[in-house]
Amino acid sequence: MALIVQKYGGTSVGNIERIQNVANKVAKYADDGHQVVVAVSAMSGETNRLTAMAKEIQDRPNKREMDVLLTTGEQVTIALLSMALEAKGYPAVSYTGWQVPIKTNEVHTKARIERIDGTKILQQVGQGKVVVVAGFQGISPDGDITTLGRGGSDTTAVALAAALNADECQIYTDVDGVYTTDPRVVPQAKRLDTITYDEMLELASLGAKVLQIRSVEFASKYNVPLRVLSSMQEGGGTLITSEDKFKDNEMEKPLISGIAFSRDEAKLMILGVPDKPGVAFQILGPISDANIEVDMIIQNQGVDGTTDFTFTVSRNDVDTAFEILQATADKLGAREVLSDDTIVKISMVGVGMKSHSGIASTMFKTLADQNINIQMIGTTEIKISVVIEESFLELAVQSLHDAFELDK
Amino acid sequence: MALIVQKYGGTSVGNIERIQNVANKVAKYADDGHQVVVAVSAMSGETNRLTAMAKEIQDRPNKREMDVLLTTGEQVTIALLSMALEAKGYPAVSYTGWQVPIKTNEVHTKARIERIDGTKILQQVGQGKVVVVAGFQGISPDGDITTLGRGGSDTTAVALAAALNADECQIYTDVDGVYTTDPRVVPQAKRLDTITYDEMLELASLGAKVLQIRSVEFASKYNVPLRVLSSMQEGGGTLITSEDKFKDNEMEKPLISGIAFSRDEAKLMILGVPDKPGVAFQILGPISDANIEVDMIIQNQGVDGTTDFTFTVSRNDVDTAFEILQATADKLGAREVLSDDTIVKISMVGVGMKSHSGIASTMFKTLADQNINIQMIGTTEIKISVVIEESFLELAVQSLHDAFELDK
Repeated sequence: MALIVQKYGGTSVGNIERIQNVANKVAKYADDGHQVVVAVSAMSGETNRLTAMAKEIQDRPNKREMDVLLTTGEQVTIALLSMALEAKGYPAVSYTGWQVPIKTNEVHTKARIERIDGTKILQQVGQGKVVVVAGFQGISPDGDITTLGRGGSDTTAVALAAALNADECQIYTDVDGVYTTDPRVVPQAKRLDTITYDEMLELASLGAKVLQIRSVEFASKYNVPLRVLSSMQEGGGTLITSEDKFKDNEMEKPLISGIAFSRDEAKLMILGVPDKPGVAFQILGPISDANIEVDMIIQNQGVDGTTDFTFTVSRNDVDTAFEILQATADKLGAREVLSDDTIVKISMVGVGMKSHSGIASTMFKTLADQNINIQMIGTTEIKISVVIEESFLELAVQSLHDAFELDK
Repeated sequence: MALIVQKYGGTSVGNIERIQNVANKVAKYADDGHQVVVAVSAMSGETNRLTAMAKEIQDRPNKREMDVLLTTGEQVTIALLSMALEAKGYPAVSYTGWQVPIKTNEVHTKARIERIDGTKILQQVGQGKVVVVAGFQGISPDGDITTLGRGGSDTTAVALAAALNADECQIYTDVDGVYTTDPRVVPQAKRLDTITYDEMLELASLGAKVLQIRSVEFASKYNVPLRVLSSMQEGGGTLITSEDKFKDNEMEKPLISGIAFSRDEAKLMILGVPDKPGVAFQILGPISDANIEVDMIIQNQGVDGTTDFTFTVSRNDVDTAFEILQATADKLGAREVLSDDTIVKISMVGVGMKSHSGIASTMFKTLADQNINIQMIGTTEIKISVVIEESFLELAVQSLHDAFELDK
């Protein structure tokens, strides 16, 4: 017997029939003798409906009242799912965020969970009940209703699993797990059975949008085994866990877990900048002040006492960043400013990199064999990213997937 | 400066435009320097929408979860109304039932309010805020969400007014006050400026369905001045208050406040019952056991040691009551059982009856002048009811309205 926390998103509970399907899934775990706690989102469409009403009244709706408004969405779902479970003969009880209670700070529309008291939930599951908890919401120290912001229901589930010391936290989505890369680009892409938190964080932040980064961070921090799986199809999904557990389970670890890529990239260059201490800050400070996030950065020292500076930003920000950079160039006496939004970033992620050399050179050779020019390179402990010309994206990802035998 | 509690029902907050109208009404009181606490219902249609979803899942939805589900309705309204007030420049804050808190017993779907802690609300109005409270809902001793059942939002408003020691509780409805009688029957019917709790209770229970009886009882118990007025039109409405206050305000009190009538009446007679002690109980006991409410009762002693027994019930119940009475007649050896569902009840209500004689005789003479036969008579301290043939209803009410000069 295990204690399992499950999370179902808005699409999974989008209508009465789907809510009944969720009840069937929950019932199966209960039949197997597990204790089940379920966190749910608002029915899909509901948040938009409520937000539209609010915006009819206020362009920027009062945030405290916005939280009061939106939390009704999950409250409807918990009641209906509890009824659906009862109708199938599985005693169930619903809790809103404040009833658990899920205590957060007071930052409306993006509160952070501070503490969860699991006493009531553990009592109820101890009595054989399924406990259905409203995701995305909590209560502030002043007793106000708060919401956790984007991906909040995932966070609720992981935080509940941590607080209840659950054996596993299952996140049901519309995909059946985490893949070695996007199957639309590489049809042979394989679902991963296991992956580490760190790898998942690198993959998620690079565009494999299965889980919210925040919930993975949370799971990693509290070492909660996290499983991503489909609410529509059967299957074990992908288990996300710590490196240690990973090593115990798998004798032969793959070097590379997956290949992520992002099309939302643009490159900016400022050339012939007089090379003095503090020049990097003078160039990037104004960009950061405009709330533009800079990703990869390269500085090349020239021979004539000047330096060339290259960095990437999100494509949306390239025009603004270009203008700012132009002003900086005038001030610093730089030679030229260039921008290029026909680039993409490809990243290979794997904890195996820590102990294996030669991965980078295999990557570079593979791309060279395809005559793909590498414009920028960046690395972390478990990731190598390259920037290449946009038109080579599919070719590059497919070649790398083959070279590292990710389909095996 | 006064502290006013206002209540707006589902129709008054049925869409965004109407919510903004309500905000305008509230704003006017705030502009006049009053402190305002507002209790609101769910937007009209919302409760039906939610109930329909629940019934798709369970024929008899779990009552605890039904309360969780339905209370989202008012929670949406309080958020939107607070936003609308803020948008107009009036600081506002919303509270759900549990936030106030409005403490109830644990009877789901028809809980009773046990205690309201007004501290938070008084703090907020003291700081110049309008406080918007979700009607119809509360929190049980176990921390469960409860609802108050039919007319619950009126009850919330009156209970809040009592707890906050408010100067007035204003109930906004789709009528502009309480009338001397139904204007559809007597076009000259006049809106009453004032009426006592007792009179209102008699009128309400007799079919003048402006306010829920329960909220009037509550107002009477805690001596909360209650005003019924229209959310659509201007006007002072009708103030419902205690008899004492009434006397202070009006030197010349009208004898009669209003004429109520009910078409939902049927008469049952059991004739020639051997007259022994306990016969009334033997006749009415089985009726009551079938959950049929008996209204007026008359017993006529005959000359031959038998008695005739007549009583009225709701028209829906007449067939069932007739069958039960038939069985009783067989058991008791009564001569005959008769029923008549072509009768109506007309009631004249007025606290003036307490101190003035002659009202009954004027009433009887007025009906006699129109050749209307009185079949039954019943009286209380402030009411005289007669049962007459259905076809005379309009003539009777119009004649009595004229005779007592209620249009003056």
